[in-house]
Amino acid sequence: MSISENVKRRMAEGSWTRKMFEEANLLKKKYGEDSIFDLSLGNPIMEPPAAFKQELKRLSENPIPGMHRYMENAGYEETRAAVAKQVSLETGLQCTAGDIVMTVGAAGALNIILKAILNPCNEVIVFAPFFMEYDNYIDNHGGKTVAVKTDDNFLPELNSLEKAINKKTRAVIINSPNNPTGVVYPEKLIRSIGEVLLRKEKQFNIPIHLISDEAYSNLMYDGLKYVPVFPAYHRSLIATSHSKDLALPGERIGYVAVHPDIDNKPELIDALIFCNRTLGYVNAPALMQNIVRHLQHISVPVPEYEEKRNFLYNNLTDMGYKMVKPQGAFYLFPRSPIENDVEFVHELQKMSILTVPGRGFGTPGYFRISFCVDHKTIEGSLFGFRKVAEQFRLS
Amino acid sequence: MSISENVKRRMAEGSWTRKMFEEANLLKKKYGEDSIFDLSLGNPIMEPPAAFKQELKRLSENPIPGMHRYMENAGYEETRAAVAKQVSLETGLQCTAGDIVMTVGAAGALNIILKAILNPCNEVIVFAPFFMEYDNYIDNHGGKTVAVKTDDNFLPELNSLEKAINKKTRAVIINSPNNPTGVVYPEKLIRSIGEVLLRKEKQFNIPIHLISDEAYSNLMYDGLKYVPVFPAYHRSLIATSHSKDLALPGERIGYVAVHPDIDNKPELIDALIFCNRTLGYVNAPALMQNIVRHLQHISVPVPEYEEKRNFLYNNLTDMGYKMVKPQGAFYLFPRSPIENDVEFVHELQKMSILTVPGRGFGTPGYFRISFCVDHKTIEGSLFGFRKVAEQFRLS
Repeated sequence: MSISENVKRRMAEGSWTRKMFEEANLLKKKYGEDSIFDLSLGNPIMEPPAAFKQELKRLSENPIPGMHRYMENAGYEETRAAVAKQVSLETGLQCTAGDIVMTVGAAGALNIILKAILNPCNEVIVFAPFFMEYDNYIDNHGGKTVAVKTDDNFLPELNSLEKAINKKTRAVIINSPNNPTGVVYPEKLIRSIGEVLLRKEKQFNIPIHLISDEAYSNLMYDGLKYVPVFPAYHRSLIATSHSKDLALPGERIGYVAVHPDIDNKPELIDALIFCNRTLGYVNAPALMQNIVRHLQHISVPVPEYEEKRNFLYNNLTDMGYKMVKPQGAFYLFPRSPIENDVEFVHELQKMSILTVPGRGFGTPGYFRISFCVDHKTIEGSLFGFRKVAEQFRLS
Repeated sequence: MSISENVKRRMAEGSWTRKMFEEANLLKKKYGEDSIFDLSLGNPIMEPPAAFKQELKRLSENPIPGMHRYMENAGYEETRAAVAKQVSLETGLQCTAGDIVMTVGAAGALNIILKAILNPCNEVIVFAPFFMEYDNYIDNHGGKTVAVKTDDNFLPELNSLEKAINKKTRAVIINSPNNPTGVVYPEKLIRSIGEVLLRKEKQFNIPIHLISDEAYSNLMYDGLKYVPVFPAYHRSLIATSHSKDLALPGERIGYVAVHPDIDNKPELIDALIFCNRTLGYVNAPALMQNIVRHLQHISVPVPEYEEKRNFLYNNLTDMGYKMVKPQGAFYLFPRSPIENDVEFVHELQKMSILTVPGRGFGTPGYFRISFCVDHKTIEGSLFGFRKVAEQFRLS
């Protein structure tokens, strides 16, 4: 009786993930970590780039006076200027330090945006399959998640988007490259989404924010190029982090970048900073801010991920698993050979392979494989994947 | 129209602080940072202890593989175990790693506790003067702040506390050593508060949490000893950080410790971890977790703060300013010589001294002086304080 009813209900809804997690831990204890092929987590095995390590060493040897103190809630001016320079390069629009708020990861970025813009019962549109924490973040600030289905290639359909928008809509979240599917939205699609939102803003006389979760924007394959949302839509915001490009997920360093010509910018930026402070983040970790401002153009070696993608995609496809070939991030999202994805994930678990059922992303009937692990783990999993493929007569 | 109504209202309520902040910045630009005596911020000038710098250097030279990756949302087992050992020593109760959740500072700690326990319209009691962010944190999670006045020494009165409790009460926040007054609650008072809460829990058949914000617990003077809340009350939680004891406010590293025998412990801990994840903190910064677990017994030199306190308290008292002598933290909270504290703070501003009006802590008629600055700044401020004292004929 001492726990919040809402938290209790949400925990109960997710209790199956907890159960799976506990079963996985039991397996690990029973057979040893090394005998389990854990493909369930988006926790990159790669170490941060050498430039990060050098910068950390340099700062530890030559500390800047006061470098662990509070700074402005928005973050260091120098760090925001460095981020703005990179965002300008990538989006082709002139951004300044004043358009950036440094945050506690992309999760912090999404939460301050949502708190800054949502009134009770406002709706936020997401495209299923989607990262399920979006629903928790939206709920934190009194909003309601509206999940819209995607097409066979996991791309948003404009008709469905249009139909989902109403007077209560205040934001649409897109995530390309996508977790859990790995698909990358083409430029034309992003432009079209912008056109739909602009039309609907006018129709209903409401502000609709396009929030682009770009946590995986540096991880793209097949020579694909980053497509910025800013040129596609005026009321757009980027929420992102250095968790993936610099392999720093545990350090909680990210940022919000707002469209430099967004309506009502001073008030919106003030609100973002206010929410950064009052949600208890206060500011993005100081030391990381001091480091990442020198590393805006740096990334972990993407070809290594591309190789992992190729290896696993080719092998699983050969075995008969059906999936859209991912062009970014570090996930595969194959169709579950049986309707019940939780049951299928259990079958894989019997072969010591850990994955996540599609319902964990609002889309039952699929399962997610994470390939941000070492090659040994990927290779070791193939035996089990093949056995299960045979068991379900996939080829 | 694109900003949340609630955020807009709250920003407007605090707009006077923003105005003061802007005026202060103008002063700094006009006369130069060095000519302004900024006593308005709780941002310690001290650098972290040598042991911290060594540990940071050691880790940067000998990184632990994977030390920047995600870990359990509660934090590293080893870090939680080290914290639990220290909490056991300090409270006299046997705490384990399972009683600790590492957080993004004390602000993160308070927010996950409040989200974990509050239902809409639940009330949280605070004692005025109080750190105004409490009100924002309580509001984040749908709660209502009930501010209860303190006595002439800024200590809670048991009668007022009793009267403020009703069926909707779910928590009481105490903060000793206190921001903004610097007062330290005596052991007897903490025990009595526990007795009141226990009686009221039974009377209303509700769970009342005692949340002890211990951000300043290492900073006590006059030989005072830390008084733990755990022995005083069963449903108590500590929310704290290493912002002050290790001078790391910008790094956002803190923790929640729950009473080891608290009712319903597994569910409460699960809820705290869930909220740590879903509020977007995800986990406390990894590198800092790896450092502070070696520094649980370390603190900045407290005698330096005690000297600053003595120097400023003696000087201001001699000039005729009236205040309770603070025995902890790094603030003085003198009575404003005129009723309007904002006006008085403006008078000090004219002498290039920046302080915060008491209404910023729910208690007009006072002003807060922060002495976590260098001696030069404190000494430099005396001329202006004296001039203003003469102007208002204080002695």
